[in-house]
Amino acid sequence: MATSLETEHPVKAFAWAANDPTGVFAPLKFSRRETGEHDVQFRVLYCGICHSDLHLAKNDWGFTIYPLIPGHEIVGEVTEIGSKVKKVKIGDKVGVGCLVGSCRQCDECAKNQESYCPKQIISINSRYYDGTVTYGGFSNIMVADEYFIIRWPENLPLDSGAPLLCAGITTYSPLRQFGLDKPGASVGVVGLGGIGHLTVKFAKSFGSRVTVISTSANKKKEAIETFGADEFLVSHDQEQMQAAVGTLDGIIDTVSANHSLLPLINLLKPHGKLILVGIPTELEVPVFPLLLGGKSIVGTASGGVKETQDMLEFAAEHKILPDVEVIPIDYVNTAMERLEKGDVKYRFVIDIGNSLKAE
Amino acid sequence: MATSLETEHPVKAFAWAANDPTGVFAPLKFSRRETGEHDVQFRVLYCGICHSDLHLAKNDWGFTIYPLIPGHEIVGEVTEIGSKVKKVKIGDKVGVGCLVGSCRQCDECAKNQESYCPKQIISINSRYYDGTVTYGGFSNIMVADEYFIIRWPENLPLDSGAPLLCAGITTYSPLRQFGLDKPGASVGVVGLGGIGHLTVKFAKSFGSRVTVISTSANKKKEAIETFGADEFLVSHDQEQMQAAVGTLDGIIDTVSANHSLLPLINLLKPHGKLILVGIPTELEVPVFPLLLGGKSIVGTASGGVKETQDMLEFAAEHKILPDVEVIPIDYVNTAMERLEKGDVKYRFVIDIGNSLKAE
Repeated sequence: MATSLETEHPVKAFAWAANDPTGVFAPLKFSRRETGEHDVQFRVLYCGICHSDLHLAKNDWGFTIYPLIPGHEIVGEVTEIGSKVKKVKIGDKVGVGCLVGSCRQCDECAKNQESYCPKQIISINSRYYDGTVTYGGFSNIMVADEYFIIRWPENLPLDSGAPLLCAGITTYSPLRQFGLDKPGASVGVVGLGGIGHLTVKFAKSFGSRVTVISTSANKKKEAIETFGADEFLVSHDQEQMQAAVGTLDGIIDTVSANHSLLPLINLLKPHGKLILVGIPTELEVPVFPLLLGGKSIVGTASGGVKETQDMLEFAAEHKILPDVEVIPIDYVNTAMERLEKGDVKYRFVIDIGNSLKAE
Repeated sequence: MATSLETEHPVKAFAWAANDPTGVFAPLKFSRRETGEHDVQFRVLYCGICHSDLHLAKNDWGFTIYPLIPGHEIVGEVTEIGSKVKKVKIGDKVGVGCLVGSCRQCDECAKNQESYCPKQIISINSRYYDGTVTYGGFSNIMVADEYFIIRWPENLPLDSGAPLLCAGITTYSPLRQFGLDKPGASVGVVGLGGIGHLTVKFAKSFGSRVTVISTSANKKKEAIETFGADEFLVSHDQEQMQAAVGTLDGIIDTVSANHSLLPLINLLKPHGKLILVGIPTELEVPVFPLLLGGKSIVGTASGGVKETQDMLEFAAEHKILPDVEVIPIDYVNTAMERLEKGDVKYRFVIDIGNSLKAE
């Protein structure tokens, strides 16, 4: 396996990978494809750690292909471009998020919604057109079709900006698409973690009114004073929850642990939408309140290429950045343990450029 | 209790009512309010039986107020109007559906979506403004504010048209509101019962493509040959279900028994909507497929007054009528037993005018 990984493509590369469901990361040599005529090759500088990287590393969903090289919030500097590439030039700063392929012919691709293309190819743990596995940004170099390359805005920090490529677009897209992006809209945010704190920042900069709903009363100060939320509800405080019934147009629910949807559905106005961006395994539909209120439970998955570009530009202009802790690659196992315990404010970013070395 | 029921209002009336959770119906004397200046009083001619009447009779949802006089698909002839009534005159044929009140001030009322008004008053088992219980169409006379009176189109049969007032609008409304009402739209219908067979008829007359999904293979012939469905899937036939994955824009799920949503979510195209109009008690959210496809689980509850009027006129023009079995009032206990077993094609309508007598 090691041999084929190193030789299946012509370009030598190295990474840190998880090799089995213990999820422990270790250095790995592998290879990248030659830069095709529509491809952009870039040196990875920073890569965010998303909770789904952790789930995949531990095979929580049962479909991990080992060795796994995760990382789908990838920022770097272009080192080589194919003969037909027009989007960027050598030396440009670029990003790659969740996607490296889609059919570009279906209705979803036609609507710039590549993240819903049934033939989409995810940046990690998927099969590319040539049948080889896709490997992410815990590696020294990356290559992708220019279509899926995001141009990096000049005044957007490379390190703290990285998580925008998954966490950012995952909340920006539904806020935009469900009309939660304007003054007068009342937005709830469940869970003040990586995606949650970015939801507050984006929604506030759209002018929406933001209510954070959390199990932890001790997050109130930060939610309101640091991130600018308007209201804070402790989810197990019946009185607070009751007083807020029927007040929200939409809720971004970022929680991946199983939880009751009923109290959240109750917070919605008629026709309100509970938007799931976390991935709990067991959730029950509160049918009666859903029917009586004409309410919806909606799933959303990141966003399209154009929307990701728009989001980065909006973030650069409005100075929206996640709070991050920048770490070297050899801290990744500790980081994953801390992530599992929710012990990070609010996103880890690996300084790949300065810490990942060939071993 | 009997005394207060008979005397709480000035107008003598009689009905059949359920008196306890056995759900057995028996004759009952009660009273109706005087015809107020905005009220319309009418002699009930026909009243459909909806599955929710059965649930309420048996207190399945735990909030039945006994004695219960159900019936919210009520058709009749105007006998008296208040001084300010403009919508109808004495002798007109009219209908009343699920609603007899709403605040008429909130956002929902302003959008003619009174069925989502948080202060709506249901035609049965609710409290009217004066604090008395609302009683439905298993009775000789009805009175309602003219705002909630539906004018009956001239060429629409009074008997078989009655179920349109609940079953009809319950499917017409989401078909219209979610864009499932046009050529090119692919609509699924789960369960070929009272609402289900009307869904096929409405969707076909809109020009949509209709797929019926049922547990009973023996409904195929009727679904396709009688009602005009384009496709029929037996829900436990893996091969049929697999072949239809990703083909539907929306599904109207009429099933009130608990069932798995996963196979239905899989039938939807990206951004497709699974629209619940039945009321199962335990349903699980298939989170991953919902997220990956940007799909929704939506609840809807009947429709507004204007939409109900539009629906009746559309039904009259396009000759859309439920298949009904017209019964006398003294058959109601047998009808409820048969309804519980699903033994009706496809809706019972009580001939109140000719069979309900003062006892």
